[in-house]
Amino acid sequence: MSQEFMLGLADVGNQNAAYLETIFALSNGHIGVRTSELIKQKKTSGNPGAFVNGFYDTHPITYGEWAYGYARKHQTIVKLPNIRQIRLIVDGESSDNADWSVKTIRFDLDMKSGVLNESYYVVINREKEFELHQTSFVSFAQQEIYATHFEITNMNFTGEISIEKKIEFDQGKKDLLEEIDPRVASSSSELNVTREKENDYVVTTENSQQKIRITHLFLDEEDRLINNEFISFDVTPDKKIVFDSFSLISEINQLVVNTAGLDFIELLNQQKQDLANFWQTSDIELTGDSILQKGIRFNLFHLFQNAGRNEKTNFAAKGLTGEGYEGHYFWDTELYMLPFFIYTQPEIAKSLLSYRHYILPQAKERASIMGQKGALFAWRTINGEEASAYYPAGTAQLHINADISYAFQLYERVTGDENFIQEKGLSVVLETAKFWLSYGNWCIKEGKEVFCINGVTGPDEYTALVNNNYYTNKMAQNNMKYAAELARRYAALTTQEIEALEKAVSDMYLPYDKQQGLIKQDDSFLEKALWPFEKTPKENYPLLLNYHPMIIYKYQVSKQADGLLAEMLFPSDYTREQILRDYEYYEKVTTHDSSLSRSIFSVLASRTEQKAKAYQYFMDTALMDLTDLQGNAKDGIHAANMGGSWLSMIYGFAGLTCEKDQFILRNHLPKEIKELKFKLTLFGNIITIELKDNNISGYLLEKNTNIKVSHVDNQLVISRLK
Amino acid sequence: MSQEFMLGLADVGNQNAAYLETIFALSNGHIGVRTSELIKQKKTSGNPGAFVNGFYDTHPITYGEWAYGYARKHQTIVKLPNIRQIRLIVDGESSDNADWSVKTIRFDLDMKSGVLNESYYVVINREKEFELHQTSFVSFAQQEIYATHFEITNMNFTGEISIEKKIEFDQGKKDLLEEIDPRVASSSSELNVTREKENDYVVTTENSQQKIRITHLFLDEEDRLINNEFISFDVTPDKKIVFDSFSLISEINQLVVNTAGLDFIELLNQQKQDLANFWQTSDIELTGDSILQKGIRFNLFHLFQNAGRNEKTNFAAKGLTGEGYEGHYFWDTELYMLPFFIYTQPEIAKSLLSYRHYILPQAKERASIMGQKGALFAWRTINGEEASAYYPAGTAQLHINADISYAFQLYERVTGDENFIQEKGLSVVLETAKFWLSYGNWCIKEGKEVFCINGVTGPDEYTALVNNNYYTNKMAQNNMKYAAELARRYAALTTQEIEALEKAVSDMYLPYDKQQGLIKQDDSFLEKALWPFEKTPKENYPLLLNYHPMIIYKYQVSKQADGLLAEMLFPSDYTREQILRDYEYYEKVTTHDSSLSRSIFSVLASRTEQKAKAYQYFMDTALMDLTDLQGNAKDGIHAANMGGSWLSMIYGFAGLTCEKDQFILRNHLPKEIKELKFKLTLFGNIITIELKDNNISGYLLEKNTNIKVSHVDNQLVISRLK
Repeated sequence: MSQEFMLGLADVGNQNAAYLETIFALSNGHIGVRTSELIKQKKTSGNPGAFVNGFYDTHPITYGEWAYGYARKHQTIVKLPNIRQIRLIVDGESSDNADWSVKTIRFDLDMKSGVLNESYYVVINREKEFELHQTSFVSFAQQEIYATHFEITNMNFTGEISIEKKIEFDQGKKDLLEEIDPRVASSSSELNVTREKENDYVVTTENSQQKIRITHLFLDEEDRLINNEFISFDVTPDKKIVFDSFSLISEINQLVVNTAGLDFIELLNQQKQDLANFWQTSDIELTGDSILQKGIRFNLFHLFQNAGRNEKTNFAAKGLTGEGYEGHYFWDTELYMLPFFIYTQPEIAKSLLSYRHYILPQAKERASIMGQKGALFAWRTINGEEASAYYPAGTAQLHINADISYAFQLYERVTGDENFIQEKGLSVVLETAKFWLSYGNWCIKEGKEVFCINGVTGPDEYTALVNNNYYTNKMAQNNMKYAAELARRYAALTTQEIEALEKAVSDMYLPYDKQQGLIKQDDSFLEKALWPFEKTPKENYPLLLNYHPMIIYKYQVSKQADGLLAEMLFPSDYTREQILRDYEYYEKVTTHDSSLSRSIFSVLASRTEQKAKAYQYFMDTALMDLTDLQGNAKDGIHAANMGGSWLSMIYGFAGLTCEKDQFILRNHLPKEIKELKFKLTLFGNIITIELKDNNISGYLLEKNTNIKVSHVDNQLVISRLK
Repeated sequence: MSQEFMLGLADVGNQNAAYLETIFALSNGHIGVRTSELIKQKKTSGNPGAFVNGFYDTHPITYGEWAYGYARKHQTIVKLPNIRQIRLIVDGESSDNADWSVKTIRFDLDMKSGVLNESYYVVINREKEFELHQTSFVSFAQQEIYATHFEITNMNFTGEISIEKKIEFDQGKKDLLEEIDPRVASSSSELNVTREKENDYVVTTENSQQKIRITHLFLDEEDRLINNEFISFDVTPDKKIVFDSFSLISEINQLVVNTAGLDFIELLNQQKQDLANFWQTSDIELTGDSILQKGIRFNLFHLFQNAGRNEKTNFAAKGLTGEGYEGHYFWDTELYMLPFFIYTQPEIAKSLLSYRHYILPQAKERASIMGQKGALFAWRTINGEEASAYYPAGTAQLHINADISYAFQLYERVTGDENFIQEKGLSVVLETAKFWLSYGNWCIKEGKEVFCINGVTGPDEYTALVNNNYYTNKMAQNNMKYAAELARRYAALTTQEIEALEKAVSDMYLPYDKQQGLIKQDDSFLEKALWPFEKTPKENYPLLLNYHPMIIYKYQVSKQADGLLAEMLFPSDYTREQILRDYEYYEKVTTHDSSLSRSIFSVLASRTEQKAKAYQYFMDTALMDLTDLQGNAKDGIHAANMGGSWLSMIYGFAGLTCEKDQFILRNHLPKEIKELKFKLTLFGNIITIELKDNNISGYLLEKNTNIKVSHVDNQLVISRLK
């Protein structure tokens, strides 16, 4: 089983340098290090670098044509130079000046421990030989530390080996004019670097004027601190050289790093313990397919390691593994990653939700710019300000407001943590609800005055600026409903204000085609022509890279689940028949060009007992990055898809739904998966769930009084006792 | 009466330098010269310069976020340096180094002759005095010539006066980052200038690599050619100095200017003759308001002088008077300017229409980029390529295709010039019609399969990317109908192809609200909330400068006539009751933030006998630039509005409608206008129309056989005899 925690070069989709850098990237939510080539050589490839969560620069957004209220600045996560690479100098000859032979002996990411083990066999000019071993990790215990342990063994010569670890700030910039894939970072940064000591840098971004300190140091064989970028050893055959190196990266604008008392072994042990704790509550065991088992752990591992943990940062679409999507935070966090954290790592969930509270002032400012009341969260952002430069697929995705509210609500339902809701959830939920009241309009539909939300874009970015997007209206309704509930609980609004919310909730317009018995993605979706799929060659997908947006928008074609996502999120509001009808219809017009799509189809397929489909959709994406399915993992992991694979299993195969004070699970296991075992943390209790054959069972690890686990008609029902 | 052809400083809205430069600008459709300060002084203001029609440069369009099929290059008309200004040097003292007193004695634009007369009284250091007179025009007879005649008189001193006319290419560039009004040019150009002789420049644009030659020269008192930028005279009191200067600007890329045989008087006489010919067929006489009479002539004069005449250029939104809208050609030409030319200057109309044929290859290429068949004309362009950088209010205005077809059709109906239609109209009309067949889709609406055009923007830019914009569908229907007609006439398509067009024509979906008896601007317009006009302060207009597009789009609010424009263009397709209902409804939601709006409301008000409204809307815009109503005439005239004032009078007050082989006029004169007299050129015959009291009469200048003028029930009916 422990083999299924170990990821090696044989397990991954290809051997391209930039791809491997992403896949094996190490992170702790503060620092992310792309696992690039370790030993600096004459020829290099890939796109090495490191990231600090929340460390970004801004650049003015240039529009072909300006309009009022447009986002003004790009925000782009700063790609720091490679902090991983070493230069070896052997008897005066440097690894990057010569054609050495460097062979990989071992390359393993030990996900159980959060540690990367590498060994290389180096031959210099067919004469001198030695082995280099590195053990490295980014510490969860001490967020600012990237720690490495080196061993050099099996030398066949006597001489001198030096190791240099130097940050090179002059790496080439991309030619930005040539970059036209809208999914990749669109600008790069000038960094102002002050080198205070040889191994100590203060890095300041050009425009955002953020600062961090980066310090590199070594501990020699006798654990003496070498406050330098350089360490040397006299070597003789078969002598073993052992030393450590540490890169310390301060909190943003804090500039404090603590170099005292560094101890690799102690940190390593702590790392193992932290990871053990993680797996203890978050692992998923899956019998029947060991590659899949490893892939699932890979997803869980990346989810865990890439989440911001300091309440001021969040989870970028690519985590801290790459610069895709400019390092921005999207709704991906709330809809795709947070369920995993809420149900298994509530402390991380709390920190991620706290970030939304932290940026609430910017969201209020944005609503004001849009001439509205309340708060409008940025569609994509790092610092809380709107950074979407194409508003029809950016700002217009107002649903992010309701997605955030939904996540706070789910957090409350799963943790029972009302204190947090009162402290941070309340204001976010109220302000987002106020926005809906302000932005929505009372209109006459089918002879009745109803609350409409016009001029929005739903999750499906292949349809833009429509009226009454089903998903948006449904989610806004829930946002306002939850706001009214909280407002009553905490006496936070006047009765009049609460009633206004409740009226909009009760009269919310949810477009529905009675004749076909279908929810309508929006007012006009079903009236449009079907996309000519039969005339669309494979190479024309994703459509957004091959057709003008106008062309895409005028057809019935969806990039991803839209109305169906609402059905997934509110399972008790829809009959099985309704979901089946909608599923059948919308599946045909969905391209799944977004990595956020298939997991939702998988969940709904499970819930409607379409097991083969559920499994197929799950398998299409469970291994997305490990197989480089989309070919762009080089720019970073698809974190939402990783969260989606959790949803496919837990919401889908295990049928988890959450009603007020009650959780229900069902066994929807497809035949290919023999057994599924995982844990949930509900109201502070850890419950182990096991699915096998047609059974489902759950048991508490400890005796407890505030929860009750029972079986009702093949369902597992977990209720909160009050 | 001739006073009403003379425009002086007392007639105009304000005395701001840049505004005056526009209002008094001289043009001939090839060269445009802003009438800036004549004598170079120490302090200057305004935004002087000159333009050559079709002389532009390109710059890459930068998008915040790129998408497939976006227009790639800005096109921007080149603002050439001031070719008007002179530097005076009197006894070694230069006008731009000293604080001379310069008083304007006379400043008159003689619109009857197309000539500007200026006189200045100059006092130097309270000692030396003289008068400077300049007569200038841009020649219609010889398109490359800007001619000026100087007289210096009433000197009170003996000494030397020199005049320098030098092109200064180093004028300051605007700070582009600060420019956020989307209606103004967004980029300026680097020019490469080769000075072949002292007074002879070859100017090459940086990116488009277009070339023109500019040559300046003088003719001295004895008509000797001074091939120099400089001319000097010994002066004595009361001696009169007389000389001419010519600026010659070659055709683009031709680089040929003819400096032989230049004769100011001859050119001036020719100019007077050309203008006399113009007024002979195009003047409108209007009794009751002499300011209005002058304003109307001002509009007609600018229409005449700013139209491109070489089949490769067109009529920019600002003519050649300013750099607003980057010097682009829009649908303004076809819908607002061409009726005037078609009915009174058919040769110019032919040249403007020929331009569309000239850029047909680019329109076919654009359709292909959009994945469609046929041709899609650029929403805004100079060279034929799409230059709209915000597609929802650019490329999405597909109606331009049908607007162009409509103009060809009108040209044919008014001139009977079938040869031109066969030569140039046919291919344009067929290719635009093919585009509609390709872009439109067969959809089910109200249980019936109909031809829909989804995902477009109509003329109203306050509503974007909608389905079945009424105007677009109606115009596309006409486009395809005319195409089918021409295809049958010239056997240009297969029967199958023609039938496909005819089926789309007969089954075209035209959205209509049966309950309210209203045409629907688009599928969803009437379902949206009304714009909160009562909460909108005056200073928040135009809305586009004060609200995010998303906010504007989600309301019922129109920038300009949209569906009503269709009713204006197809008068026989709508009952008076229908028009009145639509008028009453849509008037309430229209802000007229576009200068293209009020004239249409005026025409429809006339036709429905709402005379007070017709007059009010007409008066609101007839003097738009003369009063600087919108405050931005400094960036150039509002040419479409000038054309619109013609429409208000001829389509409105005189009720002109055009059916096949028949024109009908009615007297809808408002009480404020006592008498209206104008001419129309129909099938080569000039007909004088007079409206007075409640009568309307028309008579032919010459006996003719192919036309019949008759009175039927208070209508004037002009029929073509075949």
